[in-house]
This record gives sequence, structure tokens and C-alpha cells, in this order.
Amino acid sequence: MPGERIPMRVKKRPVMSSNRFHSRVSRRAALSVLAALPALSGPLLPLPARAQTDPLPSWDDGAAKQAILNFVAAVTREGSADFVPPAERIATFDNDGTLWVEHPMYTQLAFALDRVKALAPMHPEWRDTQPFKAALDGDVKTLAESGEHGMVELVMATHAEMTTEEFQKIVTDWLANAHHPRFKRTYTELSYLPMIELLGYLRANGFKTFIVSGGGIEFMRPWTEQVYGVPPEQVVGSSIKTKFQMRDGRPELFRLAEVNFVDDNAGKPVGINEFVGRRPIAAFGNSDGDLQMLQWTTMSGGVRLGLLVHHTDAVREYAYDRNTSFGRLDKALDAAAPNRWVVVDMKREWKRIFAFE
Amino acid sequence: MPGERIPMRVKKRPVMSSNRFHSRVSRRAALSVLAALPALSGPLLPLPARAQTDPLPSWDDGAAKQAILNFVAAVTREGSADFVPPAERIATFDNDGTLWVEHPMYTQLAFALDRVKALAPMHPEWRDTQPFKAALDGDVKTLAESGEHGMVELVMATHAEMTTEEFQKIVTDWLANAHHPRFKRTYTELSYLPMIELLGYLRANGFKTFIVSGGGIEFMRPWTEQVYGVPPEQVVGSSIKTKFQMRDGRPELFRLAEVNFVDDNAGKPVGINEFVGRRPIAAFGNSDGDLQMLQWTTMSGGVRLGLLVHHTDAVREYAYDRNTSFGRLDKALDAAAPNRWVVVDMKREWKRIFAFE
Repeated sequence: MPGERIPMRVKKRPVMSSNRFHSRVSRRAALSVLAALPALSGPLLPLPARAQTDPLPSWDDGAAKQAILNFVAAVTREGSADFVPPAERIATFDNDGTLWVEHPMYTQLAFALDRVKALAPMHPEWRDTQPFKAALDGDVKTLAESGEHGMVELVMATHAEMTTEEFQKIVTDWLANAHHPRFKRTYTELSYLPMIELLGYLRANGFKTFIVSGGGIEFMRPWTEQVYGVPPEQVVGSSIKTKFQMRDGRPELFRLAEVNFVDDNAGKPVGINEFVGRRPIAAFGNSDGDLQMLQWTTMSGGVRLGLLVHHTDAVREYAYDRNTSFGRLDKALDAAAPNRWVVVDMKREWKRIFAFE
Repeated sequence: MPGERIPMRVKKRPVMSSNRFHSRVSRRAALSVLAALPALSGPLLPLPARAQTDPLPSWDDGAAKQAILNFVAAVTREGSADFVPPAERIATFDNDGTLWVEHPMYTQLAFALDRVKALAPMHPEWRDTQPFKAALDGDVKTLAESGEHGMVELVMATHAEMTTEEFQKIVTDWLANAHHPRFKRTYTELSYLPMIELLGYLRANGFKTFIVSGGGIEFMRPWTEQVYGVPPEQVVGSSIKTKFQMRDGRPELFRLAEVNFVDDNAGKPVGINEFVGRRPIAAFGNSDGDLQMLQWTTMSGGVRLGLLVHHTDAVREYAYDRNTSFGRLDKALDAAAPNRWVVVDMKREWKRIFAFE
């Protein structure tokens, strides 16, 4: 868990321009709760508890939360210059490190390593071939040294040469049983509660929420609806090519060992344009892989929201930014202040990180 | 207009299995209309006019319409074995020849030819280079002979080397002003009223409607929401590659002269899987380019709907199937009966074709 050894940078967070926006939505929610109460008189009328009407209860009442509330209030206020019609309220979320834990390794890599072990009996040659030998030996250092080329080899050997249906079943079965080495929880339990609240809050305000991840699109789609409320058709990700074929009179899509699209870095705005066809007005990430998505989203005129999750909590989760081998937050962190992106200090601003806490 | 010279095949249409389904939805709609009426007594109570409650008023009350109504009733009947949850009610529609007129040439080709003319002053070499010379001369025969290679050249010369924003504006401006050579109407006016009713009827029954077209994705997205009620994020189509770049401190997506994806034939199920990530339960097409989409949709167990629009009306629109140079309906027509796909006889089954009639 290299992230835990990284010295933390405490950075002053840039916030949305001012307090000129009020959280109209929160007040409206409070009013509707009041309206639904039975008509009790004076002292018997219970005050609606703050926790009941707060759309983001796991967020500390700090600058990040206020910036989110201000942004939503601004773009949903009909008649104002900042108003954005519901159809154009597109919000895009990175996945690894933004919606769920990405350390000590991407979940999809943990999946690939488990698949290498499961398939090893059919591939005796892997005992002497990198990166498979390293995968089988749990030799993370050699694996990391194999770089992107090594990762592609692992993915092709474990994600391809089967139908889309078969792959979906393998992913679903694995996620139901695999556990994170530190938290001893299933990986989907390691989704961030504050971000799930945020997804729901945006949807309640007419937003359409999309995942835009460097991870595999078919690795995510089997579970994003259940975990994040994001249906498969709103998931954008990296992919390998598939081929349509009839086999024994039945149509199938066969997964080929060939890269189709890499949805990371400059690929993210490309993927957004290809899959969504609209420019987002809010984007959420945690690493340099999200830099171009945040640029594309926020540098278009109008009130926009860019947000970075800064992993600053080595005790409850992990602490890493500029000096990690993956999920690195460096250029995007430098770009945050000039672009007025919100940087969430996980340690201070997330009261709870996981639902099981 | 070669299609008009093609002898018509009058083909017996296969229909959905039986009359065991009733149109519960229509009846429910009728009841709700009744419930909304003021409480009038006996003879003063107006009978709800059939046209008011019929969700498909431009469709003749024949086999095709009944098959559609039966299908929707079946998959929306809670508790029945055929019930499909709303989230899985995915319907995919081809565009050219299925939702709007594709003869005497694809609208996008008409657009490309007009663009060649507009750009010709900057390209004097086009006067002596095919397929540009043919495009400038209106020599459709030579154009057709240039085949797919020629088409790609035309598209690259007219659709690329600009930003996505610039292209969107060019398309929008062109569609507002260009007119169909026979009907003297704008191209979006040449969308089929029965199919627009069908799109709305499916959405009213919890379906999510997608366009899955061989046409250019960015050629369609600027107008599909207004014309079909299908938002950009539910349009799948062919595409060229784009590149993200910062220019003068502003992010942009630049369109490259390189094919990215061809969403036709076996590419349609591939595109559906990539963009939608769910298998449709209903698919609508009109040509062999839709064959694999209909196979992928209907050959998956459960009650499914496959439908082909058969262009049989040379008077009101066009008549063509097996012997046309594009939009050919041949293999898919043969596959219709064994797969129980609905074949719509446009001449007999569409009471109105266009809204302006």
C-alpha cells in the first residue's frame, strides 16, 4: 500500500466563487417535509431534523459541500442566467479512486490476477513468461515494471476469447466473492458513501449521471446500476473489440484480444463526446487521468462544477497524490486553483467514507 | 429514383403468434380519458373518439399494428411470464428508410455533395479528381461506381478537419435550408409519422428508445431530439475519430479524417453492446443492414419484437426492396417469416406517411 507512505500535502481548497447562491433545493426539501407532517400545533410540531433533509449527510459542512450546493442551486434556478435545462444537466464521474477504492491496486487488476491464477492450469507456459509469472507469484514490483504493455497482455489473456455473456458472468461471480486485502470487504462495499449521496442528489435535481472511467466498460456495467444507480447505458469506459457471429443458430458477441478504445486522459472527453454527445456541466475525478475531462467540462462558459477527490486519509482509507504509481494527482492538482475546481480533502470533509462504518 | 422502377413483391406478413394478448394499454388510456371527463349524464357523455385514444392513429388496423400492440401489452403486464422491467425495455431504431426517407439518396450523402460544392473553390484539384468531379457534376452513376471507398473519401473531405462544434453548426444550418428534390420539403419533414407515433407509444410504455444507424452519429445528434424525441445520448451511429486538444487555452475536439466505427450490418449489435450495454427487446429496420440487429434482438428467448418497414408505395413515397443499390431489403426479408418479424407494408398499413399530408 504505497500510498500510505506518501507525505500528505495539505492544500487550501479553491471554492466556488462566492456565497451568492443559496441552497434553494435544501429549503424546498425541508418545506415539503413540513407539508407532509400532520397538522400539529405549536410546541408539538417537531422541527425536521437536519439529517433528514440534508442531501449530503456524509459531507462535512465545509467549502466542498457548499460549492456543490451552490452549483446545483444555480443551474436549477429557473429564470436565472445560470439556469440549465434538465436535458443538458450531464454529470460525469470517474470510477477508480472517485467512486470506489483504487488502492493498493485497481480492482480490475485484482480481478485479472485472480483470473490468471484460475486459468494457469491451462497455460503451463505462464510459469516462465512475464507478466504472467509475476502475476502468479504475487510479485507486484515486477508487474508494475511490465508497464502498460504488461497490463494489456494480462487483460487480453483474461478478458477476451469468450462471449460478452460469459464475461459478464465471470465478473459478477468474482465480485460477489472477492475481498479487498485490507478492508476484508467485497469491492462494491468499498464505494464511497459521500459520492453515492452526491450521485443521488444530482439525479434528484434532474441531472443524468454518467460514469466515465479508464476501467473496462464491461467490467463495470454488471454492477453500476445496483451500486451507484447508474444504468449500463450511462457507463463509458475502455473496451476491447467485439465481433458479432452466429453460433449454432444463435447470435453472440465474441470478445477479441484487441484494444478498441482507451477511455483515459485525453480519451475521456473523446469518450464523452462519442457516447453522450453532450458536453457535461459537472465532472468528478481524482487523478491526472481526469484532467482533460475536467477541462472539457468546466472551460465552456457558464456555471460549471469540477471536483477532485483528494486522498488524504491514511487511517480510514489511503493518502496519496503526486508520488503514487497510479491514480496520481499532480497536474490536475496544480490546475485546480486556476480553474476553481473543488478539491475535496477526504480526511476533513468526509464524515463517513463507507456505508459499513 | 431507381426504387420506383422495381417490381413490387407483395408478401404475406408474418404476425405475432396469436391474439392471446389484448391491448390493455389502450383500454387503460381510454379509461383515464373517461375518468377525466366532467360528470355528465347519459346522452351528453361524449364517447371518447377512437382517434383520441389510439396510440398509433396513422397505422391501419391491420396485422402490423396488432402485433405491436400485442407485444407492448405482453411485456408491460406485471406478474406475467413475459413481463420485462422498464429498465430493460430497450428499443432500437434504424434511421435511413426506417424513420425518414432515404431515396433517391441518403440525406447525409446529399449533405456531403452540397458541402463539396461549397468547398470546391478552395479545392480546384477536385475538378479533375474522382469522386469529387462526379459530385460537382451531379453524376450519380459515377458516384455510385466509386463505391464505399468513394463515399469514405467524400465524407472525410466534408466531415473532418474541423471541431465538433463547427460541424454541428454546419449540419444544423444545412438541414434548416436544404430541400428534398422530389417532395420540396426539408429533410426532417420527411420523417415518417407512423414511426414517430411508435417511438412515442413505446416511451409512454416505459421503453427507452435508441437510434442505431449506419449514418454519422454527429450528423444525427443535432436534430434527433427535436424530430424523434431521442436525445443525443441515445443515438448510436458511425463515426470518425476525434482528438482532444487545447487551442488558445480553450479545449476542443477536432474531427480527424479517419474512420472510427461503422455502425452497420454486424456492426449494429456491436454498437448496441458498446453504447447501450443491454440487449434490446425490440428492433426496427428496413434493410439488410438491420439483419444482425434484428437477430441480436429477437433471438434471445422471451417475447421480442422485430419489425421491417417494407417500402411498397411508389406513389406516396418509394417502392424498393431486393434490387436497389442501397437500402436493400433482401436477406432480411427472407429471414422475416422464419423469425416471425413483422413486415410493414407501407402502402397498405400506413394511413399517413408524413405529418404534412
